[in-house]
Amino acid sequence: MKANVQIPKGTRDFSSDIMFRRNYIFNKVKACFERYGYAPIETPAMENIETLTGKYGEEGDRLIFKVLNSGDFLSKSKITENTNSKSLSKEISSKALRYDLTVPFARFVATNNNNISFPFKRYQMQNVWRADRPQRGRYREFYQCDADVIGSKSLLNEIELIQLSDDIFSDLNISNIEILINNRKILSAMIELMGASNLFDKFVIVLDKIDKIGFENVKSELVKIGVKKEKIDILNSFLNVKDINQLPKILQDSKIGNDGFKELSYIFNRIEKIGLKNSSLKFDISLARGLNYYTGSIFEVKSLDVNIGSIAGGGRYDDLTSIFGLNDVSGVGISFGIDRIFLVMDELKLFPNDIDVSTRVLFLNFGEIESDYCLSLVKKLRDNKINTELYPASDKIKKQMTYANNKEVEFVVMVGEDEMNSGKLSVKNMKTGDQKNMSMSDLINLIK
Amino acid sequence: MKANVQIPKGTRDFSSDIMFRRNYIFNKVKACFERYGYAPIETPAMENIETLTGKYGEEGDRLIFKVLNSGDFLSKSKITENTNSKSLSKEISSKALRYDLTVPFARFVATNNNNISFPFKRYQMQNVWRADRPQRGRYREFYQCDADVIGSKSLLNEIELIQLSDDIFSDLNISNIEILINNRKILSAMIELMGASNLFDKFVIVLDKIDKIGFENVKSELVKIGVKKEKIDILNSFLNVKDINQLPKILQDSKIGNDGFKELSYIFNRIEKIGLKNSSLKFDISLARGLNYYTGSIFEVKSLDVNIGSIAGGGRYDDLTSIFGLNDVSGVGISFGIDRIFLVMDELKLFPNDIDVSTRVLFLNFGEIESDYCLSLVKKLRDNKINTELYPASDKIKKQMTYANNKEVEFVVMVGEDEMNSGKLSVKNMKTGDQKNMSMSDLINLIK
Repeated sequence: MKANVQIPKGTRDFSSDIMFRRNYIFNKVKACFERYGYAPIETPAMENIETLTGKYGEEGDRLIFKVLNSGDFLSKSKITENTNSKSLSKEISSKALRYDLTVPFARFVATNNNNISFPFKRYQMQNVWRADRPQRGRYREFYQCDADVIGSKSLLNEIELIQLSDDIFSDLNISNIEILINNRKILSAMIELMGASNLFDKFVIVLDKIDKIGFENVKSELVKIGVKKEKIDILNSFLNVKDINQLPKILQDSKIGNDGFKELSYIFNRIEKIGLKNSSLKFDISLARGLNYYTGSIFEVKSLDVNIGSIAGGGRYDDLTSIFGLNDVSGVGISFGIDRIFLVMDELKLFPNDIDVSTRVLFLNFGEIESDYCLSLVKKLRDNKINTELYPASDKIKKQMTYANNKEVEFVVMVGEDEMNSGKLSVKNMKTGDQKNMSMSDLINLIK
Repeated sequence: MKANVQIPKGTRDFSSDIMFRRNYIFNKVKACFERYGYAPIETPAMENIETLTGKYGEEGDRLIFKVLNSGDFLSKSKITENTNSKSLSKEISSKALRYDLTVPFARFVATNNNNISFPFKRYQMQNVWRADRPQRGRYREFYQCDADVIGSKSLLNEIELIQLSDDIFSDLNISNIEILINNRKILSAMIELMGASNLFDKFVIVLDKIDKIGFENVKSELVKIGVKKEKIDILNSFLNVKDINQLPKILQDSKIGNDGFKELSYIFNRIEKIGLKNSSLKFDISLARGLNYYTGSIFEVKSLDVNIGSIAGGGRYDDLTSIFGLNDVSGVGISFGIDRIFLVMDELKLFPNDIDVSTRVLFLNFGEIESDYCLSLVKKLRDNKINTELYPASDKIKKQMTYANNKEVEFVVMVGEDEMNSGKLSVKNMKTGDQKNMSMSDLINLIK
């Protein structure tokens, strides 16, 4: 019987050549997070369902993977003709897989409040799961790498996150980065000026699609959800803003709008002075971010060279922990999408060449006597922190050499009768093809 | 309203101080895996349910966490009065969280067979989930770190895994390690000699408990499951084996038993010659390993200084991939339990002291003018790869210094009016308490 050897839709196996590249990105991101003073935490893959629902909008709630209660989960439920998926799922599932890292982080802060000193800067690099329809760059299981500061309202944090993003992409050699920034307060002011405050959530979802469907379609969709036709021009004037200093005029005397403008302008001024390496910072009123919890600055990062959507994004949330019983703790964070960054780097051929060289020395296996003899030599190299293998069987030399080539081994060592007698090794440099006799310490020196 | 801020039973939040220690272990293990030529892979957290069920015994099957199908999962199921948890779960859940890394690895090899050249040495460090009753050192979500070789029957692989284990614990400075080894073939022979071959699975489960319940209780439980009283002495003679060379005599002419002995003795001979650093290798007939798929060597690793059960374990499986349609691919592997290793290291105080120093320099914040001035200084340090922070608000100095102390920062930099005028920095060494004026390049040199 041949079993099903597929994996679930939207999930992936990562082979070693991919893993070496992913780890390269992880290590760079991690080093950068730590360079900015963020410290690592981790939260469980599963959270209680109440922790997650209601934080990501209706659409988000539908995409949360629920975990079946273990044991005889039905024993306590009454099933009738009226039982449906929604009512039953509440009874038979009390846990769910995390949907992002921000809500679990807010929950972490509330849970561990007594042991945290604020401002608290943490990073977190873990998988998240979404029952989304898979497409290029969108998976059902994917890594997020988040840096957040919580317990500080200072805009210096926003500035730091923009610099952090610039540094990460510059460390990865990705140039031509655009950091788009907006502010929920400006967005609120605009929507208020358009007389559509009661439509905020729907408005934002429509506006977010402008890249895909264009201004004309956004306009007609907005009218469809209830925005008055004669107010659409206001959106147009915001979209035409080329310099943020034009904002005060069109924001008129909106209090919240001018607060948003002050924040934006504080950030722009400092970033201009400090300078960015590979990125440009750009105001974009159409940037809305779908998540319910943002309240101030929001940003998204794009590669101008690869058309794949945002590769990082984040924003400020003034009140996310209060749903978990902890009030007055404002936070701001950014999330890096490793999978998309991978695709960008792959397309732009930015991965270093020798990234997947792991084994440096392979000892061929000529039989039991020879392999016994080699065991202590292999040990010596490993004790010198040199990645070394002994081929495990006396297969045909051609097969063993193919193995060496596949693994991109640098040196192949041959030990036969002659070498055992002389105490020397026959070493082949796999790049140049040169073959030489040498002692063990010669080999160690050669490699180091 | 105060929401529930608990996390699911048996799962954990990891704060930064714990994460720094965990990452210390991860990095050592990873470096060791790579030193032996193992290359990283990853598989999805969720597998199709058929991939997992039936591989871990009945008990194991019950402990697998199932994921509810997304969307309107009930729409296709007929619910009647006779519906029970078992019948319903098949209809409403087609995915499950992985239970270990070995079965997903075998599935990986079958799925990606065409892109793998054998022998294939991989390592994998990922979470697994089990709906087990939580206790000290046992969680519902925990990390496994596995190294396996597949596609090679050579016992050199077993030898290598024993050396690998020895190296890992020696790199972690854990001494007094005992590596217990047994062979399923010897176990089979013994059970055959006891006339209980048909009871193999049950026998093994009882035998595995000998550490906890003692020989007398094992004896009576064995009789209870059907082993004949007069055969119990045979078990006793195996338990009394002090030197593996006594085995041939009591194994009599059992073919499978002598095959097992030859394997064991091949391994012992080589390990004796090469030598181990911190571990001793010991034959233990009562070592059985609960998992169904083992066929040859099995091993478990214990710390003799901390009573916490096995901290690593593994064995050879001759036929695990055949259930996935790939025949004749023998494998052997070992799994390191990071959570228990953590507890051992914590109890023996083996973590280095400075492990959680992440931020090296903190700039205090004296106000907007000063912090603006500091932004470019902070950037300069970070560009020199020095982990640096600017405190984000002009809070009371006492609060800022507490923050520096909590983060175990090495240097605190103060920049007020005087420093801005002179272009110097006032730098306080937090260990010695010394405070000095210096230039930026002095500070960089001091740190490097």
